[in-house]
Amino acid sequence: MIERINSPQDLRPLSIEQMEQLAGEIRALLVETVLEQGGHLASNLGVVELTLALEYVFGDPEDRIVFDVGHQAYVHKILTGRREQFAHLRERGGLSGFPRISESEYDAFPAGHASTSISAALGMARARDLMGDRHAVVAVTGDGAMTGGMCYEALNDAGHTKTPLIIVLNDNEMSIAHNVGALSTHLTRLRQSKAYTALRRSVKRGLGRIPKIGRPMEKGISKLLASVRRLLVDDHFFSALGVRYLGPIDGHDLSQLIDVFRRAKKSEEPVLLHVVTQKGRGYAEAERRPDLYHGVPPKKREEAPCSASVGNGSIAVSELIALAEKDIRVVALTAAMPAGTGLQAFADRFPDRFFDVGIAEEHMLTMAAGMAAAGLRPYVGIYSTFLQRAYDQMICDVALEGLPVTVLIDRGGLVGPDGATHQGVFDLSFLRQIPGLVVASPRDVRQLREMIRLSATLDGPIAIRYAREGDDMGPHLRDHAPMRVGTWEEMIAGADAAFLAVGRMVNVAMRAAMALMEKGVSCGVIDARFIKPLDENMLRAAAQKHGLLVTLEDNIVAGGFGSAVNERLHAWGLKTDVLNLGVPDRFIEQGSVSQQMADCGLDVESVAAAVMERLNR
Amino acid sequence: MIERINSPQDLRPLSIEQMEQLAGEIRALLVETVLEQGGHLASNLGVVELTLALEYVFGDPEDRIVFDVGHQAYVHKILTGRREQFAHLRERGGLSGFPRISESEYDAFPAGHASTSISAALGMARARDLMGDRHAVVAVTGDGAMTGGMCYEALNDAGHTKTPLIIVLNDNEMSIAHNVGALSTHLTRLRQSKAYTALRRSVKRGLGRIPKIGRPMEKGISKLLASVRRLLVDDHFFSALGVRYLGPIDGHDLSQLIDVFRRAKKSEEPVLLHVVTQKGRGYAEAERRPDLYHGVPPKKREEAPCSASVGNGSIAVSELIALAEKDIRVVALTAAMPAGTGLQAFADRFPDRFFDVGIAEEHMLTMAAGMAAAGLRPYVGIYSTFLQRAYDQMICDVALEGLPVTVLIDRGGLVGPDGATHQGVFDLSFLRQIPGLVVASPRDVRQLREMIRLSATLDGPIAIRYAREGDDMGPHLRDHAPMRVGTWEEMIAGADAAFLAVGRMVNVAMRAAMALMEKGVSCGVIDARFIKPLDENMLRAAAQKHGLLVTLEDNIVAGGFGSAVNERLHAWGLKTDVLNLGVPDRFIEQGSVSQQMADCGLDVESVAAAVMERLNR
Repeated sequence: MIERINSPQDLRPLSIEQMEQLAGEIRALLVETVLEQGGHLASNLGVVELTLALEYVFGDPEDRIVFDVGHQAYVHKILTGRREQFAHLRERGGLSGFPRISESEYDAFPAGHASTSISAALGMARARDLMGDRHAVVAVTGDGAMTGGMCYEALNDAGHTKTPLIIVLNDNEMSIAHNVGALSTHLTRLRQSKAYTALRRSVKRGLGRIPKIGRPMEKGISKLLASVRRLLVDDHFFSALGVRYLGPIDGHDLSQLIDVFRRAKKSEEPVLLHVVTQKGRGYAEAERRPDLYHGVPPKKREEAPCSASVGNGSIAVSELIALAEKDIRVVALTAAMPAGTGLQAFADRFPDRFFDVGIAEEHMLTMAAGMAAAGLRPYVGIYSTFLQRAYDQMICDVALEGLPVTVLIDRGGLVGPDGATHQGVFDLSFLRQIPGLVVASPRDVRQLREMIRLSATLDGPIAIRYAREGDDMGPHLRDHAPMRVGTWEEMIAGADAAFLAVGRMVNVAMRAAMALMEKGVSCGVIDARFIKPLDENMLRAAAQKHGLLVTLEDNIVAGGFGSAVNERLHAWGLKTDVLNLGVPDRFIEQGSVSQQMADCGLDVESVAAAVMERLNR
Repeated sequence: MIERINSPQDLRPLSIEQMEQLAGEIRALLVETVLEQGGHLASNLGVVELTLALEYVFGDPEDRIVFDVGHQAYVHKILTGRREQFAHLRERGGLSGFPRISESEYDAFPAGHASTSISAALGMARARDLMGDRHAVVAVTGDGAMTGGMCYEALNDAGHTKTPLIIVLNDNEMSIAHNVGALSTHLTRLRQSKAYTALRRSVKRGLGRIPKIGRPMEKGISKLLASVRRLLVDDHFFSALGVRYLGPIDGHDLSQLIDVFRRAKKSEEPVLLHVVTQKGRGYAEAERRPDLYHGVPPKKREEAPCSASVGNGSIAVSELIALAEKDIRVVALTAAMPAGTGLQAFADRFPDRFFDVGIAEEHMLTMAAGMAAAGLRPYVGIYSTFLQRAYDQMICDVALEGLPVTVLIDRGGLVGPDGATHQGVFDLSFLRQIPGLVVASPRDVRQLREMIRLSATLDGPIAIRYAREGDDMGPHLRDHAPMRVGTWEEMIAGADAAFLAVGRMVNVAMRAAMALMEKGVSCGVIDARFIKPLDENMLRAAAQKHGLLVTLEDNIVAGGFGSAVNERLHAWGLKTDVLNLGVPDRFIEQGSVSQQMADCGLDVESVAAAVMERLNR
């Protein structure tokens, strides 16, 4: 069956039974491919029927389906002419793990970060209205994404304007981990529709028996009835926002889904369809532990670029737990990433001092600032790419008054298969421009531990940025002084040039220095563990000693660590030659971390070659 | 009366009548001071009784009152020991126009940007709980701020956790302009409480007359009653979020306010108090046109640093209207700033193509991207400082797929009395690191017009950044070619050095070049109108011709335009000396624009002196 489907149009002749058979084949393909390639399994297994029904009803190219987050768009990709490429999911040159306009005309909008689909879809709906078109625009969001404020901004706007817009709320009772927040509880109440239906039935029956008692009473009862109808059929949360609510709908019943979607297509105003699905559906292990099958690693794990092996997050959190044992003021926050950040271990140990706020980075950073203002020592665990969501809060709420918030930035640098929307390559640039913020990046897990301990002694904000995995480079042979803010560490002394390297790039610099030594070039390595403030003494000395400084970072060159070095040298009027190595000025698409490193010229060979070239050797 | 109040404790002995007299005196002081100093008048006149009652009930230093946005905290400042300094509101060295922890122990949290107070207050409430304290934490937010998604993220979190937290929703039916969005309509319905009260009364009366008809009916009726009670007394929007709703409350009735606040103080869970106030209250002109009295300019308008006089916003919008006349795809968006951005003129001309989304910058940028993906040509009008809110959306939604969104960034650079939270000094840094985004800044209003016209010809995103006011520097004498992306313009040729200046700093550079000429230094001026991409040809030529390049920008030096020049020169291996002039690495507090320019070394004299020093003359 699946071989016959090359576009949504091919679904039209199918019967429900045939589509159910197709659903089974899609599930088999999902399990097979994702277990091999890595990616998001449980969420895609949950939306097979939902996507089939969507493409069946809205699959014309002029209709627009906008997926929120987008990691659940695999079925959509399979149904829209990308079945054969699906084997190359998340590979370099293969399919992105997220919808991309540049990949297919059926991908209406890019995704990767949560809570954007209603905004994008509303924009498309308004474009349609202005152009006098009539096609459908559908936002497919999830209950997890609904914890993000953007959804609410968009609903508030959509409900106000009354343009036809279909919002499918795919409610699987969890986003990545279990959902949090009051709205989640509220959705659960809505899901328990049997109680509502029964009440509605009994009330109607009861009222039918009330004798007529004059007009005032009739009027009162009729108003009552209207109220009850709203309470039972509508949902007031969404109707307060001006959006009609329909649900709950069984997300695995193709007939019901197609029927509801067809009705929704005729609506002249925004309508929200509450579809209940089961994450991991049809694959027993994933059904049982959907959290474990949310993100699956690829079967062939690549050799990490720096022979890294330890999860930095779990190292950071183990040190954080040690701090928290001694200091009751230490609390930890996450935005729906207890597992990914490693903070689940903290939550297990200190449930009362752990706060999962949902996919709500803005709120998280400002709440952390509020906690710090009230005397706590908050630690925020977050991925680099998602910190982009709370940039203003970092400036105005955390840094302006110098509040002691520590931001543990995981997934810094190039991240591999998740690709362009998830690269952690902007953070050093956008953080180092914030006055008063300390920005640090450890070369290995030992230094990471040291930095966590250091953070506890500071009176202001600090961001500690690291990649997913870290090396253990062993104890430093010479320097045994405790770490101070704004100090670097010389790893190897050199004569011709010196690397100033950040984070995991220190290891690359060490190996490049070895390679260069074999070619007769003496290249020192300095671990520039503080991006802000710089170690001005060591930088000045290095600039005076060497003919060439090579800055090395897995961050975009524009405005990054290297550019901080340039600024300082210019401020001093030193004309030492500088080579800025880092991520180039383009979006880095999916691939393995080592492929991306090589593509960016950040692997050992490329780095050594760049130095040789600059030295004209 | 007012002279006797030096802290909230001094309010305690007062009677209601005395406090009403005090309210009158405070209003007189507000009108007198704000008309002189400039600032936010209407919003503060609206919250006199509200603030008096807040300080009366929650004025102990251990209680924490967190103001949202904060421009309505003048009354709070007057009541908390800052009455005498109030004459120096928004002056250099005087009081900030916003709450600042560094200014007073009574300012619990900084503010400036909307929708943060519930997050910060929730953090403080959780800190209190962990520390075993019992004091009150109050967030004072507004109906305008409630259009921002952060509020919802925070409510969702607060409602979930059941910690005592008081949220005062100050509803004056407008934020800066009239409010938009479905929630605003909903609040209006709530405000019309008489209808609700009457319905409740009639229904109760009617039900009392229903004869008993057996147990099933009784049960049904009792459930009905419960439903109706919830519908009428609670508000379902907030209760869906787990927050108890109380209101509406007359925000000018001191007795009622004090009574409700005392009850709220005893609540063991989050409670939202819906207080209705009148913006501009007590000052007839402001009551009539609160929008005109939202932000009042200071009486003595300073001489602008570059003899600027024309509002850049209105220039940009007039050109945009001309584009829109010819191209039906042109639409405009604002986040609650139709007047400030100048877009009201567009709205008047093209009401169907204008979208005010509320204080919802994240939603706005993503919706604009959605519109662009659907074929429109969206123009987003926004202040530089508020674009910080939509940084991630700029990267992932606008730039990743190269969608043709034009961002008109007003209030770029140093902004004067609004101070640290409103400076537009980060944008060149955080924008130029985004791949594929064009970043431009016009030297004057002519060039601004040219850039708007240019934007219409582009196939990707562009940010055009300008200060509030612009010069007219006249037509350029030599260059008549139409502007192309990534081209600079040589204004004056020089021999010893060359300024590479951005936006309004071109004028400063011209005048500094004149001053330097008198001292025998020949300094050229290049208008670096594109920050990204740079004009590589002109930059290379300038670097080869001059011994010194001076980059000049009213943006933070870290990662800004100057740092882009440094990176390029290093990439080419050119060792031309560079002096990077710009905003230093600290928050720039309130003052006039010219004071701030001088403080940052960006006035003509400082710039000339810095060049002389660098040239060792």
